[in-house]
Amino acid sequence: MDKPQTLKGFRDFLPEKMIIRNEAIRRLRGIFEKYGFDEIQTPSLEYQEVLLGKYGEEAEKLMYLFKDPGQRNVGLRYDLTVPFARVASTYQDLPKPFKRYQIQPVWRAENTQKERWLTAIQSIDKLDKKTQEEVEQELAQKGISTEQTKSIFGNIKSASPDEFLSKTIEYTKNMGAYENVSFDPTLARGLDYYTGPIFESVVEEPKIGSITGGGRYDNLLKTLGGPDLPATGTTIGLDRVVDVVDELKLWSQEKTVTKVLVTVFNPELLLQSIKIASTLRGSGVNAELYPDEAAKLEKQLKYANNKGIPFVVLIGPEEDAKNLVQLKDMASGKSENITLEQLLKKIK
Amino acid sequence: MDKPQTLKGFRDFLPEKMIIRNEAIRRLRGIFEKYGFDEIQTPSLEYQEVLLGKYGEEAEKLMYLFKDPGQRNVGLRYDLTVPFARVASTYQDLPKPFKRYQIQPVWRAENTQKERWLTAIQSIDKLDKKTQEEVEQELAQKGISTEQTKSIFGNIKSASPDEFLSKTIEYTKNMGAYENVSFDPTLARGLDYYTGPIFESVVEEPKIGSITGGGRYDNLLKTLGGPDLPATGTTIGLDRVVDVVDELKLWSQEKTVTKVLVTVFNPELLLQSIKIASTLRGSGVNAELYPDEAAKLEKQLKYANNKGIPFVVLIGPEEDAKNLVQLKDMASGKSENITLEQLLKKIK
Repeated sequence: MDKPQTLKGFRDFLPEKMIIRNEAIRRLRGIFEKYGFDEIQTPSLEYQEVLLGKYGEEAEKLMYLFKDPGQRNVGLRYDLTVPFARVASTYQDLPKPFKRYQIQPVWRAENTQKERWLTAIQSIDKLDKKTQEEVEQELAQKGISTEQTKSIFGNIKSASPDEFLSKTIEYTKNMGAYENVSFDPTLARGLDYYTGPIFESVVEEPKIGSITGGGRYDNLLKTLGGPDLPATGTTIGLDRVVDVVDELKLWSQEKTVTKVLVTVFNPELLLQSIKIASTLRGSGVNAELYPDEAAKLEKQLKYANNKGIPFVVLIGPEEDAKNLVQLKDMASGKSENITLEQLLKKIK
Repeated sequence: MDKPQTLKGFRDFLPEKMIIRNEAIRRLRGIFEKYGFDEIQTPSLEYQEVLLGKYGEEAEKLMYLFKDPGQRNVGLRYDLTVPFARVASTYQDLPKPFKRYQIQPVWRAENTQKERWLTAIQSIDKLDKKTQEEVEQELAQKGISTEQTKSIFGNIKSASPDEFLSKTIEYTKNMGAYENVSFDPTLARGLDYYTGPIFESVVEEPKIGSITGGGRYDNLLKTLGGPDLPATGTTIGLDRVVDVVDELKLWSQEKTVTKVLVTVFNPELLLQSIKIASTLRGSGVNAELYPDEAAKLEKQLKYANNKGIPFVVLIGPEEDAKNLVQLKDMASGKSENITLEQLLKKIK
């Protein structure tokens, strides 16, 4: 077998990226829960009859549908909305309003996706990517006269929020979000299950477009065979959020969660190193013990350096005799001999 | 369409269960990281050639293999070991020893699984489930004489740990794990890629058997076309851990992460409620705002009760005039009028 590879379009996440992903999830989770949303998880696989007929034909071409080993017709989740609707249908006695969040992957064969054929309304969604003139040309090719297009643009651009939307925007003043909210009458979303306001969040720098998208879809639950209940929601693109954080270096760029490497001077002093590492862990410090007591100290230090571990502890015969440890700061290269108590204070 | 369902063998996790799962993951992650393991994630789907030929024919029957929309031969991950081996092969410059943890689902069509045909060594694995006599009878039916079986049992039961294993067990004394570790010469594991010590963790009450399993597999990376590096690892069954915690009620049984419901007395007082909820959130309290300002107070209280929210805040005209809020403890049913400052102290 040749060198094994990941599928094109699929990614591994190594420690450096996972540290950012986990921090993003931790913050998102914190915000969701502060607003009274509880987490749920649904299976990755659903019956095809749950998935199909909800998204439109174009989307179905991008779905992972297949027969499982038990010959059932199944598919991988395409979004988080349809599984949520299924949950609302399956457990009809959940307290209402049921406020959930869900942090799970979805599967779309985007890299085999053909360009979608766009209707007039969806073309308007292109306004942030194309100029009005370009969209007018595109619509003209589809047989819509320049006069009609100009009239549509005029109507849309002069639209103002209705009373409900104005009130909603007004409320965001008291929630500290007002300066980030604006009304955009040209906004449109691809899926046709929306029945009310739609919303997106846009990152302007780097120019990656929207990182969240959602709206109100009051008929969706019923369409799925569930109860007739109004619903609203949004999706956040975790991969995109992480890419933005990464590109702008918004958070500290750690390569590992390990705070300190406890080296092993020689086999006779291994037990001392085990004890120090255990004490550090007992105090809540992420402490790694070098796993080979025969390895040269140089090799162990090189490992700490490669992995990006900020501190190294050495316990040689001298330190051991004096009941001290040597602490090395990998960034400055400076070392000092200190007591275990001082070590715990310093590293915590 | 009939009422939509989950696939047999697949589960939804509702908030009550997710609170336990998240706490379990939080604790596991904390332990992994304290010992210097960093998290990685790999895609759910891999090329079939990465997955196949690694597990044996019986396992392959339980794998989810199919053609994706791009006509590639793919499969869902069957375990976390093979993807890890692929990662080690793909990124050969990772600092060694590379210590990773991974918290992701695997897919096995267990509910269509036929009884596995057992060899002599694997039958011995049954000792904790069957008596020695039952295993002897079973082996006799397979043509192995009672004499042979007794000799095998004798040899195994009288085995003692070698020097390496004895030392390893000795080290656990300094890591606070000694009282939970024992040597079991009858232990065996199904997969044939192990090349050294194997280990399991067993929960005795409730009797659900092992919740972790692993060992040393020094040739696996090479088999997968990767570098010739020794490796060791274990798997923890998260579902089983959560089931044990749930059954023994080891942790507090919360139904929601929400700490307080801020009710809305009437549309005129909605803004007051929004402000109180925002202040609570600003202080780190999970505070839900009832989303319908026209709903009767009784309905709002019933919602808090159903959802299991421990505290409710009411701001009526009287409270508002005096700059107070009414705090209701849902467990005791007691209410008191307090200042916002007192509320923050009380609820935090």
